[in-house]
Amino acid sequence: MAVAPSTYPRRLLPLFLGLFQGALLLFFALFITYDEPSAQADDTSLVANQVYSTFPFFQDIQVMLVVGLGLLLTFLPRYGFSALTHNFLLLSFSMQWALVLQGLLYHFHHGQIHLDLHKLLVSEFAAVTVLISVGAILGRASPCQLLVMATCEIPVYLTSEWVIVTCLGVLDVGGTITIHIFSCYFGLGVSKALFRAAQQPLHPKETPTPSSDLMSLVGTLILWVFWPSFVAVLCQPGDAQHRAILNTLLAMSASAITTVVASSLLERDGKLSPGHLQNGSLAGGVAIGVVADMAVPPAAALALGSLSAAVCVLGFGFLTPLLRRKLTLHDQCGIHNLHGLPGILGAAASVVAVLVASKDTSGSQPSQLSPAGGNASDGVEGGQWGHRGAGGQALCQAAGLAVAVGASLLAGLLTGAALRLPCLARPPERLCFDDSLYFKIQDQAESPEPDSSAEEGALALKERV
Amino acid sequence: MAVAPSTYPRRLLPLFLGLFQGALLLFFALFITYDEPSAQADDTSLVANQVYSTFPFFQDIQVMLVVGLGLLLTFLPRYGFSALTHNFLLLSFSMQWALVLQGLLYHFHHGQIHLDLHKLLVSEFAAVTVLISVGAILGRASPCQLLVMATCEIPVYLTSEWVIVTCLGVLDVGGTITIHIFSCYFGLGVSKALFRAAQQPLHPKETPTPSSDLMSLVGTLILWVFWPSFVAVLCQPGDAQHRAILNTLLAMSASAITTVVASSLLERDGKLSPGHLQNGSLAGGVAIGVVADMAVPPAAALALGSLSAAVCVLGFGFLTPLLRRKLTLHDQCGIHNLHGLPGILGAAASVVAVLVASKDTSGSQPSQLSPAGGNASDGVEGGQWGHRGAGGQALCQAAGLAVAVGASLLAGLLTGAALRLPCLARPPERLCFDDSLYFKIQDQAESPEPDSSAEEGALALKERV
Amino acid sequence: MAVAPSTYPRRLLPLFLGLFQGALLLFFALFITYDEPSAQADDTSLVANQVYSTFPFFQDIQVMLVVGLGLLLTFLPRYGFSALTHNFLLLSFSMQWALVLQGLLYHFHHGQIHLDLHKLLVSEFAAVTVLISVGAILGRASPCQLLVMATCEIPVYLTSEWVIVTCLGVLDVGGTITIHIFSCYFGLGVSKALFRAAQQPLHPKETPTPSSDLMSLVGTLILWVFWPSFVAVLCQPGDAQHRAILNTLLAMSASAITTVVASSLLERDGKLSPGHLQNGSLAGGVAIGVVADMAVPPAAALALGSLSAAVCVLGFGFLTPLLRRKLTLHDQCGIHNLHGLPGILGAAASVVAVLVASKDTSGSQPSQLSPAGGNASDGVEGGQWGHRGAGGQALCQAAGLAVAVGASLLAGLLTGAALRLPCLARPPERLCFDDSLYFKIQDQAESPEPDSSAEEGALALKERV
Repeated sequence: MAVAPSTYPRRLLPLFLGLFQGALLLFFALFITYDEPSAQADDTSLVANQVYSTFPFFQDIQVMLVVGLGLLLTFLPRYGFSALTHNFLLLSFSMQWALVLQGLLYHFHHGQIHLDLHKLLVSEFAAVTVLISVGAILGRASPCQLLVMATCEIPVYLTSEWVIVTCLGVLDVGGTITIHIFSCYFGLGVSKALFRAAQQPLHPKETPTPSSDLMSLVGTLILWVFWPSFVAVLCQPGDAQHRAILNTLLAMSASAITTVVASSLLERDGKLSPGHLQNGSLAGGVAIGVVADMAVPPAAALALGSLSAAVCVLGFGFLTPLLRRKLTLHDQCGIHNLHGLPGILGAAASVVAVLVASKDTSGSQPSQLSPAGGNASDGVEGGQWGHRGAGGQALCQAAGLAVAVGASLLAGLLTGAALRLPCLARPPERLCFDDSLYFKIQDQAESPEPDSSAEEGALALKERV
Repeated sequence: MAVAPSTYPRRLLPLFLGLFQGALLLFFALFITYDEPSAQADDTSLVANQVYSTFPFFQDIQVMLVVGLGLLLTFLPRYGFSALTHNFLLLSFSMQWALVLQGLLYHFHHGQIHLDLHKLLVSEFAAVTVLISVGAILGRASPCQLLVMATCEIPVYLTSEWVIVTCLGVLDVGGTITIHIFSCYFGLGVSKALFRAAQQPLHPKETPTPSSDLMSLVGTLILWVFWPSFVAVLCQPGDAQHRAILNTLLAMSASAITTVVASSLLERDGKLSPGHLQNGSLAGGVAIGVVADMAVPPAAALALGSLSAAVCVLGFGFLTPLLRRKLTLHDQCGIHNLHGLPGILGAAASVVAVLVASKDTSGSQPSQLSPAGGNASDGVEGGQWGHRGAGGQALCQAAGLAVAVGASLLAGLLTGAALRLPCLARPPERLCFDDSLYFKIQDQAESPEPDSSAEEGALALKERV
Repeated sequence: MAVAPSTYPRRLLPLFLGLFQGALLLFFALFITYDEPSAQADDTSLVANQVYSTFPFFQDIQVMLVVGLGLLLTFLPRYGFSALTHNFLLLSFSMQWALVLQGLLYHFHHGQIHLDLHKLLVSEFAAVTVLISVGAILGRASPCQLLVMATCEIPVYLTSEWVIVTCLGVLDVGGTITIHIFSCYFGLGVSKALFRAAQQPLHPKETPTPSSDLMSLVGTLILWVFWPSFVAVLCQPGDAQHRAILNTLLAMSASAITTVVASSLLERDGKLSPGHLQNGSLAGGVAIGVVADMAVPPAAALALGSLSAAVCVLGFGFLTPLLRRKLTLHDQCGIHNLHGLPGILGAAASVVAVLVASKDTSGSQPSQLSPAGGNASDGVEGGQWGHRGAGGQALCQAAGLAVAVGASLLAGLLTGAALRLPCLARPPERLCFDDSLYFKIQDQAESPEPDSSAEEGALALKERV
């Protein structure tokens, strides 16, 4: 049943957010504190160096998430303001929520949680999962639904990340498995449970215009430029971080070119599709994350970037329509093509990389069998995986993938079911993809431009200069 | 009396700027030099480290001012090009002018002024005041008026900043009092004296369009992302800078969420207002500046961010209309809501923070009574305020607020009166908010799009391929 | 003869790029590797510091090239998507191609090429030449033509750069001669040989709209902000880099103001031209590159910035129309005004700077005659130019300019002739400046906006909420 825009319930959003902010404030007042100021000059210099080495990366990532990802989502021509605002709101909300939960889970020592830039960064990574998952239902869900989704997703992510990284010891410095794959299947689960078997017809406001496509491409380019910072920020400083930056640059560069090739070959008339460019160019960054700091050769980074871009474009061409038809699975932004498929490719590559690296070190370079002296965090020395061995580590990588997919799908389906609660005010189909449902914004169709004849004549009479 | 666009005087601008550039060149040639190249390897490494620790912050601030603030001002749909260009021009002009004045005031030793990145940064901070003040009269003032305003504002700012920071010893690392409050009341003073008791009717070109609102929101997001760099750049490296970054991040994050709550509750139909989002999200950054490096708990940063966003939105809802009605005070961009009210809130918070910090240190932690060994610039140790004591420091903070408000209002009113000089070519009301008065730009209303039928037919005949 | 859009050949692009990616992959697999992980803790810290000191600069440059330059080129209202995409594609392609060639030319030791961030940066600098040259023929060339042009330009650039910097010992830290002048005259050569004596009539889609001008100005501002990183990234850390940053900031600042003066004086009605602002503001950055790290006084940087902006605006006003009329030379973006003229000005300035610096050191500061102890790379010490002497160095600077102009013009003319090959599918005049030739993008003229009456009525029946 269509709900008139005037009766659309809008009090839930401030209520929800207001209560959350109050609770957050209480929690912070009770439990969160800063580190004591360091008493010695040495420590001061250490803290200063940590700030200088982390903060530029952190700012790059903030630009990616707030500006880049926000603009990427503005391809819906009448939903740009909502896309930017909801993305921004969800980032702030999810980061705060992750800060609380991480505080409770990990850092609760002596009744006080010590906040630092690294903890904020880890919370930001948690928030990224929400921003990705939203892509599956963008434009058809209310802000309240998105916030409830974020509330459910963050704790599941933290648990899944703990299982994958801490328990299984999966190597995943760029979050390919823990972030991209997890958030993709969570979002698809939500979409499936929320829309069930209903076919979503093509909405007239869904088609990008040239100018909305252009803004979206600018978002892609911002993400493309700063992606190496996202992958490398948590790497061990030195060689590993250097290699992670180079691998990511190579993979993104190959993605850009392969996207053009694949998109051009896919379409009958050889024209490029804006959607392919906006997504495929980034696929390499998703896939490379899990192997970025491993001892993969540069050619492997190029190949992975190329392959993931091709898979992403093919996904848009064949898999998305198939999923929509066969499974009535709705994926608004194609997150399965950008985060799911390249993520799986990256996870598979990490299995191969682990096995090959172990063969290399045990075979051709016997002098490296003793891991002593080497940078233990490089992830390439023979003794890196301890008693587990390369085979065991490869198995762990695969197990991590399975955990991420399984946990996220299950949790996504449950969350999606919860989002069907009537009180969460899903917008009626007629009002989907439209800023004017949520914002005091001039309707583009009704009032194209201030008419400059009548009003200006009236104004001319009032001139006082 | 209406002035026809064709007779609008436009020779003043190049004359003014040309003379200024000539004088600047002469001044630089006579007095400004670089440091001698450092003779020793130690010094070279020191300079290199200074560059690496300051330059990324500096670039962040440049992006904020040139791109972020410029885009924020493009909410006027037909005035975007002017807003961006005037903002850019004023930044360059004010920075050069501040460099000259600061050179004369502070750095005149041995007949030579040694230029370095830190001095440029301080000049940039001075220029920020102009960019903020302009918001009060945006769209209704000519570039010449804005340049004269900048010429007057910079010396008053430098004097006021010298009184507040050097004489009174006010702690204000993020410029809340010295920059935000000062520039807000200066701008309001100019607006009052310039427009006097004349009600400014709503201009037909004043209403944002969806696309201009979107560009403006992008500007807000850029400012939001880089704000921590602005607050923390002048902090003591180490703990203080780390804390300033964290406090700013928390305050901005709380602002984003509280803005949505407040805007939604304020409007009868619960829709969010773009103007609230564009400004309220940044209010926390304004307020936190003055306490960012003090030993405030994280919860206080959150609370301050929340409160200042709420105050900002309420200001838009109630105070701005009231000021406009009762005082015929015109504030085009609502700088009083974004810079004035949150600034005062921050100043009040700094008084509380000083008093509480002193109680904490003298009460529960008697071992810290001896300030020796601690990082003296943290601003939290018991002995920090020397003979003055916490009460005295708190009084100084309040006095600094009073000086900033008083000096800026007075100087603003005088400057505004000067801007009424007829030669400064204030644009007639009919031509306000319109790029075509200053730029060779196609009028949007007259020529919507190149028609693609007739011309293309003609072109097809000329094909040569 | 006009080619119908449906028969326009589009298979060449994926074929060309696909083959290139395959060959690149093979080359990387055979020859390119990373450095061995450093075995000692000292080395690790060294690598980490190198990353922290280079990576922020590198990211700034990436933003400039991908986002800033891309947006600058979107001034063509219907060609924005193509401009952004082709710029992005050419950057990726040229960087990979330069990486291969540089590997072959310089770094082929022991059968392996060791990749690091510095080598990627140098390849990126090579790619910049292509992005600049494209400006001369933007909108009238097919992507295949642009790729062939890149294929030809990169090896010529590398050779010319080797002759200029390595053989002649020209000092050019910001690439004024090697990059800007080279790419400008290469582009003009291509344009001349490609279009020959055919007058290019003003195309109806060539005129910027207010919104495309705005986007382009945003691109200029991004370039303006990050330009100091481009100039200073390859400087010797310490004083030289510090001075390069300051000189660039001063030159850009002076350019911004002088552009307004010059543009306003040039036009009869005193209105500013968007094109002047978009280009003139950057002219100072082009000119300053060659002298940025020399011991020029700050006033010289200001003067050079001012002068180059004036020359750039005058070039747009007089030289471009003249070249078009007399030489039928087509320069779509005015690269001769932004890169050619200011570049020559900078080269001339470098000759003067070298001569003056030598006089200074030998005259007034006799104690510096012994270069020992000083930072040899500062380029200012008396003994810097070795046996060559200041006069010899000045001669070398002039010779470098001559080599850059000569080599680029010749190679450009040859390349342009090659681009006339029919198989490269130059677009017919009627379809120039139009995204819809290359992209599946809604035509702006045909379908202005989704009509919201009929479709929404139909949708209202399908509501399911």
